[in-house]
Amino acid sequence: MTVRAAVMPGPGMPIEIRELADPELRPGSVLLDTLASEVCGTDVHLWRGRLAGVPYPIVPGHVSVGRVAETRGVHADALGAPLRLGDVVTFYDVHGTCGDCYHCLVASRPNRCPSRRVYGITYSADDGPLGGWSEAIHLLPGVRILRLPDGVDPDDVIGGGCGLFTGFAAVERAGIALGDTVLVQGTGPVGLAAAAFAALRGAGAVLAIGAPAARLDLARRLGADDTIDVVDTAPPERDAWVAERTGGRGVDVVIEATGSPDAIPEGLGHLRDGGTYVVAGHYTDAGDVAINPHAMVNRKHARILGQWGTEFRHVSRALALLGKHAERLPFRDVIGRRYPLEGAQTALEDVAALRVTKAVISP
Amino acid sequence: MTVRAAVMPGPGMPIEIRELADPELRPGSVLLDTLASEVCGTDVHLWRGRLAGVPYPIVPGHVSVGRVAETRGVHADALGAPLRLGDVVTFYDVHGTCGDCYHCLVASRPNRCPSRRVYGITYSADDGPLGGWSEAIHLLPGVRILRLPDGVDPDDVIGGGCGLFTGFAAVERAGIALGDTVLVQGTGPVGLAAAAFAALRGAGAVLAIGAPAARLDLARRLGADDTIDVVDTAPPERDAWVAERTGGRGVDVVIEATGSPDAIPEGLGHLRDGGTYVVAGHYTDAGDVAINPHAMVNRKHARILGQWGTEFRHVSRALALLGKHAERLPFRDVIGRRYPLEGAQTALEDVAALRVTKAVISP
Amino acid sequence: MTVRAAVMPGPGMPIEIRELADPELRPGSVLLDTLASEVCGTDVHLWRGRLAGVPYPIVPGHVSVGRVAETRGVHADALGAPLRLGDVVTFYDVHGTCGDCYHCLVASRPNRCPSRRVYGITYSADDGPLGGWSEAIHLLPGVRILRLPDGVDPDDVIGGGCGLFTGFAAVERAGIALGDTVLVQGTGPVGLAAAAFAALRGAGAVLAIGAPAARLDLARRLGADDTIDVVDTAPPERDAWVAERTGGRGVDVVIEATGSPDAIPEGLGHLRDGGTYVVAGHYTDAGDVAINPHAMVNRKHARILGQWGTEFRHVSRALALLGKHAERLPFRDVIGRRYPLEGAQTALEDVAALRVTKAVISP
Amino acid sequence: MTVRAAVMPGPGMPIEIRELADPELRPGSVLLDTLASEVCGTDVHLWRGRLAGVPYPIVPGHVSVGRVAETRGVHADALGAPLRLGDVVTFYDVHGTCGDCYHCLVASRPNRCPSRRVYGITYSADDGPLGGWSEAIHLLPGVRILRLPDGVDPDDVIGGGCGLFTGFAAVERAGIALGDTVLVQGTGPVGLAAAAFAALRGAGAVLAIGAPAARLDLARRLGADDTIDVVDTAPPERDAWVAERTGGRGVDVVIEATGSPDAIPEGLGHLRDGGTYVVAGHYTDAGDVAINPHAMVNRKHARILGQWGTEFRHVSRALALLGKHAERLPFRDVIGRRYPLEGAQTALEDVAALRVTKAVISP
Repeated sequence: MTVRAAVMPGPGMPIEIRELADPELRPGSVLLDTLASEVCGTDVHLWRGRLAGVPYPIVPGHVSVGRVAETRGVHADALGAPLRLGDVVTFYDVHGTCGDCYHCLVASRPNRCPSRRVYGITYSADDGPLGGWSEAIHLLPGVRILRLPDGVDPDDVIGGGCGLFTGFAAVERAGIALGDTVLVQGTGPVGLAAAAFAALRGAGAVLAIGAPAARLDLARRLGADDTIDVVDTAPPERDAWVAERTGGRGVDVVIEATGSPDAIPEGLGHLRDGGTYVVAGHYTDAGDVAINPHAMVNRKHARILGQWGTEFRHVSRALALLGKHAERLPFRDVIGRRYPLEGAQTALEDVAALRVTKAVISP
Repeated sequence: MTVRAAVMPGPGMPIEIRELADPELRPGSVLLDTLASEVCGTDVHLWRGRLAGVPYPIVPGHVSVGRVAETRGVHADALGAPLRLGDVVTFYDVHGTCGDCYHCLVASRPNRCPSRRVYGITYSADDGPLGGWSEAIHLLPGVRILRLPDGVDPDDVIGGGCGLFTGFAAVERAGIALGDTVLVQGTGPVGLAAAAFAALRGAGAVLAIGAPAARLDLARRLGADDTIDVVDTAPPERDAWVAERTGGRGVDVVIEATGSPDAIPEGLGHLRDGGTYVVAGHYTDAGDVAINPHAMVNRKHARILGQWGTEFRHVSRALALLGKHAERLPFRDVIGRRYPLEGAQTALEDVAALRVTKAVISP
Repeated sequence: MTVRAAVMPGPGMPIEIRELADPELRPGSVLLDTLASEVCGTDVHLWRGRLAGVPYPIVPGHVSVGRVAETRGVHADALGAPLRLGDVVTFYDVHGTCGDCYHCLVASRPNRCPSRRVYGITYSADDGPLGGWSEAIHLLPGVRILRLPDGVDPDDVIGGGCGLFTGFAAVERAGIALGDTVLVQGTGPVGLAAAAFAALRGAGAVLAIGAPAARLDLARRLGADDTIDVVDTAPPERDAWVAERTGGRGVDVVIEATGSPDAIPEGLGHLRDGGTYVVAGHYTDAGDVAINPHAMVNRKHARILGQWGTEFRHVSRALALLGKHAERLPFRDVIGRRYPLEGAQTALEDVAALRVTKAVISP
Repeated sequence: MTVRAAVMPGPGMPIEIRELADPELRPGSVLLDTLASEVCGTDVHLWRGRLAGVPYPIVPGHVSVGRVAETRGVHADALGAPLRLGDVVTFYDVHGTCGDCYHCLVASRPNRCPSRRVYGITYSADDGPLGGWSEAIHLLPGVRILRLPDGVDPDDVIGGGCGLFTGFAAVERAGIALGDTVLVQGTGPVGLAAAAFAALRGAGAVLAIGAPAARLDLARRLGADDTIDVVDTAPPERDAWVAERTGGRGVDVVIEATGSPDAIPEGLGHLRDGGTYVVAGHYTDAGDVAINPHAMVNRKHARILGQWGTEFRHVSRALALLGKHAERLPFRDVIGRRYPLEGAQTALEDVAALRVTKAVISP
């Protein structure tokens, strides 16, 4: 018995379909039949070799949904809900946080723990199907499994993808107050989720800057009150647009989800004095940018927060809210196209070229 | 009757001694005989015309100590302590916060209220002696007066100067936890106060980067555990110095008090993942600097906070702690030289040339 | 010219209709033609003499809506929106906060400032129509006026009443995290608003304990996911009801809005370890209650927060959200009955007897 | 080979000396030769059978200092410092936190994790020397070991005992601001540590209420500015004493460390409006107490926080500060008397009768 998987042999090399050895389950393991796995910007970064320490060849795919096919003594999910064969689940791609290092023990920042492992990124294909671009996924003991809440369509999870959780984490970190005006820079998966959760958290207004028109439509459907196209406008027009909507003061909170260094000084310019700016879009190094410490930080009395990755509660709570507000959070509509395993290379190229917002592998 | 004062006629123009008309006290006014007033970096900025909207000619001097010479119905200081003729007091240079604007009412950020007035900066000499480089100072109704706590030498207040309060505010904003390792960048008045208050707040270690040797000595006497000379070392040496003292992790908190844009990326490099960076040294625009949003903010999960000006509690509490810890906080030693009113021009030039840490006008 | 008003002559004395002298407007004054004013539990407390220092006779009515009839040099509301004759406005009943005391200056707690005055409570009828049970209301200089946002029906403001703002403040103080399970104890005006704003802020579930059935219906329409009748159930049933909905752990946040001391130990029992409990319902002294410091506070690692009164931002932001979410926040439905000025006594008795949720005086 | 230990066979039964089987070390185990172990109030509670679920017989002693006698592949302490035979260490008595439950994963409250185990409390003597009243202590794999920092005398650690860490945690949880006035109720081990760390954190004044005179002396030596004897005074005298020292306002922060329910309403009475009250002294159930929700919580806008147990950072940072401030923190002076293993029963009785502040077992 083997498992078919789309394997990324190395940076710049074409994706190949390989037959992996059937995984050897251990006590505490769960085997999933994959229903869908996302193709996200990180996968493009992986393919371009922009992340350090990746053990190529790898099976990409960090956020996935599958059906429980086999378990070794696991009867409940990470929140204690009963787990049975056939259940549709997702899982937290990060695991293995040590609980022993300075970040885990003293600084309460497990997202910076050096031991954390991530499905689809830090495992070699030689270790088995430890990524979602595969017919089956081996969930090692300790991986946190979450049964999809009632009413949650697997497509909403995959349409949101990892951006769903990063956007949730950015909104939580921003500490939005009831009635705050929130600006989201960027309308990719992270920005869309940030706009949706900012609205859900009781923002007074959610503004979004992004492109193209279809994504701005999505932003509005997910909760943005107003949007502006970043391609069709110059910075002064966007300044005026924000000023008009905030009595000239700037917004209370900005969430950056662009990955473009230039967005930082522009966004700090949109922020009111004493406001909060969350940098959530720079997962990889896209270069430096000039800022003015006097005008943008000190005099503005700004609070600027980096948001790195996610913690388990971001995932579990985002899923729960997806269940509660299914009608208001149609993340399935973010899905642009579905690809079989054999189409993984095309999917990657489509995402790289921004031809689809969210590409999905359906093995 | 007239009042002699050192007046700054305009940017770049020499300081002149003028006789100002005797101030007309109103109900709620207090008149001080000036004991001492500081010359700080802001005065140099004023002289170079770097602050916008200054109504030259002005009487500089925002932090001052004086003796109560006359009052119009004022019998208590801002904390309710009895106030009598002859009492030695200081006062909060900021007043006139409106209590009505968005910053005062909604955002709880009165330090960004557009109505705030500042002694020695936002008043014209035509309005009377509303700055400390003067034989007498007219405290308008509503100016918050503070009797010096028992045991506080006026020289400790002036030696600390406005940097004492800004340093206090920066330490408060940093939210230092018991046992945190704190790095202070800069050993001018703000940096020295930040080092002193960080130590007082229970930091596990206080490190300071600055110059020259005499200021590093002062930093250690005020509470720094270890210092390094920024002139004698290159950035990699300072990186190694910080790494050695933090198990390679970087410090929990950095307080920037340099006014140099280059300090920002260097300081973010010294910060541990998940740490806090306070920008307190960029009161004026010293230009842009390139930062890397990925490595310095996002991946580092950093918290970067601008600290603009002070609020009243910073002043009242810094003074109270000066009273409690007189022996541990010898700010009088920061005073480099005293000048009569006629020496104000020389004082300004000495501060501009960094020839003295803190110059004092003793009218 | 005179102004007709319903006056409360003293504790326990029947409400009388009096003709008050036409108010003498000052620079900064605004005169309103009253559209509606609420009758709330506090008015019952006033009538029973339960508040200290009330300068009877008074014109009750602290939250009111009116039409601008006359102004003395006032051209904008408290947020800077233009103000014209005929505009429909409400106003913040609290004013006169000194900005000078320990609470205002040092502790950032203006809601505990001893100088604050409150319309309908701390003014004598001899000072004019400074309460809403009157044909006209004299807004003194400095009273913060708010034009109703577009789409906000005056009935939604009055239906919410002061409970709308107290409920908002309680939700803000609770610091609810996205996805938290929130329990509201009490379904009077404060509890209904707390349930509505908790839902609006992204709670994962909002539970409410209250009575009678009609108010539980209202709670569900305003945002509660589930309710239980406090009259029809005994404490163990409610314990079981909460436990079932929280995996036996208890809720993340409880907001108490009952005014009943017994609710406190019951509510602390419903709270999860490490959760937050906000006491918002004890505006007057309803007696003592026994708690167990070990089990309810220490071992539970609880956070218990008193919420006293409101600040201006609670009022302005609650109104703005009422404008944004008009369809989800039908507070007009809380109104039980309208009374003319002559019916004020009846209104008071109806509220005291809990015969109406919210009684409204329409002069 | 056997290990001699003082064993508590069951509630109310006399302590016995038993020979335990030599512990079987596993990979990751460390064996300590015990230098000293504390006898604290919890041990009295254990002896009286007041804690639920204790697997008698047990070897008491949760905070201990020992010398590394043997290791199985352990070369560093919990902070990464090298660990060698003969090193003097202490260890965090709590371990086994699961990292998987709601408290660990979602609520960030590992101190409420149901899986946590505690040396000297939750282990049976049948499992070996897993408590400090023993010649040797078996540190199981995963127990967090801390080498004593340079300059820290083992007697300072034991003199502080577990109260050192609980007091540290209470001070951290209080969120004391620079210059706050802090009142500590109780001058037992927790109260003494709270006073010391409050002073270290930059309190403006530290007041302590306790008894007898010797402990009040200790409180002042450790950092309290002023003390009052709780036995010699009635509540109104203490009210007056606090009022005099706070301009009649009450203190900013109270830390309760008495274990007496009556202290709660008294302490809330000493608190200023908007202040913070930490309940740290009710480790066991000492009964109920009546509080007034209106006056003590709601109108006071109070923040009341329970502090349950400690986390690792409290222990590691308290030790580090002990190293930095050895001269200011002479906790060794808290030690009242030393007992051999055979004196454990006497030690217990002395602590129960409050005849010693801190009793120490030196096997």
